[in-house]
Amino acid sequence: MTELVLPGVGPLDSVSAARAQHELDRKTKPRRSLGRLEDLAVQLAAVRGGAGVDVLDAAVVVAAGDHGYARHDVSAFPQEVTAQMLSNFAAGGAAVSVLARHAGARLVVVDVAVAGATTVPGVRRLAIAPGTRDATEGPAMTLDEARTAIAAGCDLAAELAKSGVAIVAVGEMGIANTTAASALTAALLDVEPRAVLGRGTGVDNAALARKLDAIQRALAANDVSAAAPFTALAAVGGIEIAFLVGVIVGAAAARMVVVLDGFVVGSAALAAYLLEPQVVDYCVAAHISPEPGHRLILDRLSLTPLIDWDLRLGEGTGAVSVLPLLRQAAAVLCEMATFEGAGVSAALK
Amino acid sequence: MTELVLPGVGPLDSVSAARAQHELDRKTKPRRSLGRLEDLAVQLAAVRGGAGVDVLDAAVVVAAGDHGYARHDVSAFPQEVTAQMLSNFAAGGAAVSVLARHAGARLVVVDVAVAGATTVPGVRRLAIAPGTRDATEGPAMTLDEARTAIAAGCDLAAELAKSGVAIVAVGEMGIANTTAASALTAALLDVEPRAVLGRGTGVDNAALARKLDAIQRALAANDVSAAAPFTALAAVGGIEIAFLVGVIVGAAAARMVVVLDGFVVGSAALAAYLLEPQVVDYCVAAHISPEPGHRLILDRLSLTPLIDWDLRLGEGTGAVSVLPLLRQAAAVLCEMATFEGAGVSAALK
Repeated sequence: MTELVLPGVGPLDSVSAARAQHELDRKTKPRRSLGRLEDLAVQLAAVRGGAGVDVLDAAVVVAAGDHGYARHDVSAFPQEVTAQMLSNFAAGGAAVSVLARHAGARLVVVDVAVAGATTVPGVRRLAIAPGTRDATEGPAMTLDEARTAIAAGCDLAAELAKSGVAIVAVGEMGIANTTAASALTAALLDVEPRAVLGRGTGVDNAALARKLDAIQRALAANDVSAAAPFTALAAVGGIEIAFLVGVIVGAAAARMVVVLDGFVVGSAALAAYLLEPQVVDYCVAAHISPEPGHRLILDRLSLTPLIDWDLRLGEGTGAVSVLPLLRQAAAVLCEMATFEGAGVSAALK
Repeated sequence: MTELVLPGVGPLDSVSAARAQHELDRKTKPRRSLGRLEDLAVQLAAVRGGAGVDVLDAAVVVAAGDHGYARHDVSAFPQEVTAQMLSNFAAGGAAVSVLARHAGARLVVVDVAVAGATTVPGVRRLAIAPGTRDATEGPAMTLDEARTAIAAGCDLAAELAKSGVAIVAVGEMGIANTTAASALTAALLDVEPRAVLGRGTGVDNAALARKLDAIQRALAANDVSAAAPFTALAAVGGIEIAFLVGVIVGAAAARMVVVLDGFVVGSAALAAYLLEPQVVDYCVAAHISPEPGHRLILDRLSLTPLIDWDLRLGEGTGAVSVLPLLRQAAAVLCEMATFEGAGVSAALK
């Protein structure tokens, strides 16, 4: 069977949102003077609904996978780095590990499809495949593999929600996965590969040319279109990207806030949006990366990034770094005094 | 005497900065892939020098003062709000109180020159004057008052440094103080008042016209120029702004990182820079406010704001909200694993 079954995503809670804005307007500050902090507070309230925003446990999911694209020498790093990084994530030495610790977020590392990986304590091993096939020669994964990955992502989101998580920061790791994200984004936005092409974690001009060639050949070798996002995902995307599609849809279905990291996660969010448009209401774009395709994705999703810091590491580093800002937004809503309560004169007009 | 004596500000520690960048380049990430987080880490190391960045205790200073400009009906709020807010800050209900608590920053509220204020537990009372005089009729404060305020700011910075504070977030509160900041900025940048004029915490068009008129009259009634920043500060600025000039210079002299809030703090930073150019190396611009004058100031100081969130509350809210980001930068430097240490292959080229 090729049918893709996704959990249903409900609308935002507009009553909770209106109540939150009303509360914010009573606080000891000029109306709307906290700008995006207020927008975030209202979004948090709208997503969480009856659960409220007093307690916002957070988790960061790092989905790792390898890519057939790597054989075309499109990355500055060798493929074995993906597997090596699994241990580094679990041991607490990776950037996302450090940032998650400081943000008080639970780190969930998932070996979705890492080549040559073994069982690593502290890493969840799905091992759906040892990476994707070479998409320049045909589909990167089977529809069954893609479906399995998406379902596993949905399951993880449901599990996190059940354990009390309110905010899911979404990240990834995979040598050559900006190539997969670029091919997928070009397919889903129906733009030229050149328009989405970037240097990933920092390749030189020769590798950049090989990357463009690999993307173009993958798109030529597969029958992909924005009208069939699931097929496109399987054909030119990544298995960890498919898993993240599941995490994003599953998190929205479970009324969690989804904090998106950079370009690769963005490509998963774009696919999730095309499969289930309502997910975007549950999403926060943490940052804008230097990858040209990321801007195109955020524009399509009508998401405005919280920070613009030239981050291009991935792993979820950008997403987890803005978690304190989301908690601040909730704190403003929950803890600030009102004009009446504090005996402060409100605006004259 | 009219002489202004300021503590000396030394150069950044370039050896510590170079060592920090070298350390960052050995971490398990592509070089420079953490963008501004790395810039911040290097700046923190350069400011702190031998003290290191392992422990970064933070304080937020909120300087409150009233303004003769208020009599021209330039704000949406009545003047008594400044005094009322002192209690709200101390009681923990103001926005900056909530955000400081979440950022683990000590809140230091200073009644620099609040009209009609009394002693409030938890508020340091300087009470240099009951606000400024009406600058449209002559100098807003005497040179002695300005000097006293600056010296008090320097003293507070020295005291904070002595107690172990490494980062000082700088904020303010004062009805009509964007009018003072606008007049001061126009004088110090030698631009037309219209170029810096904004709605502050949200005035209507009629109040905006009165505000512009008050600024123009203040600049006409006083002999001000960028060549004499201290005189300009006393003539058209605010007493809490003068105090913040002292905090900024004193903090830089004591090798603390200074996190600047919005436009009013920006005008203090501009004055501090003109008095002691080296201070800017110690400064981080937290955010860019919608006040047009703020952009002009940041351009002049060559500072790039960390966030652009349409914040226009003041109080130091923007400055304290980015404190977690500074701590993340330090954590990346101090806690991430190196390629060698984690057994991860470095880039091929």
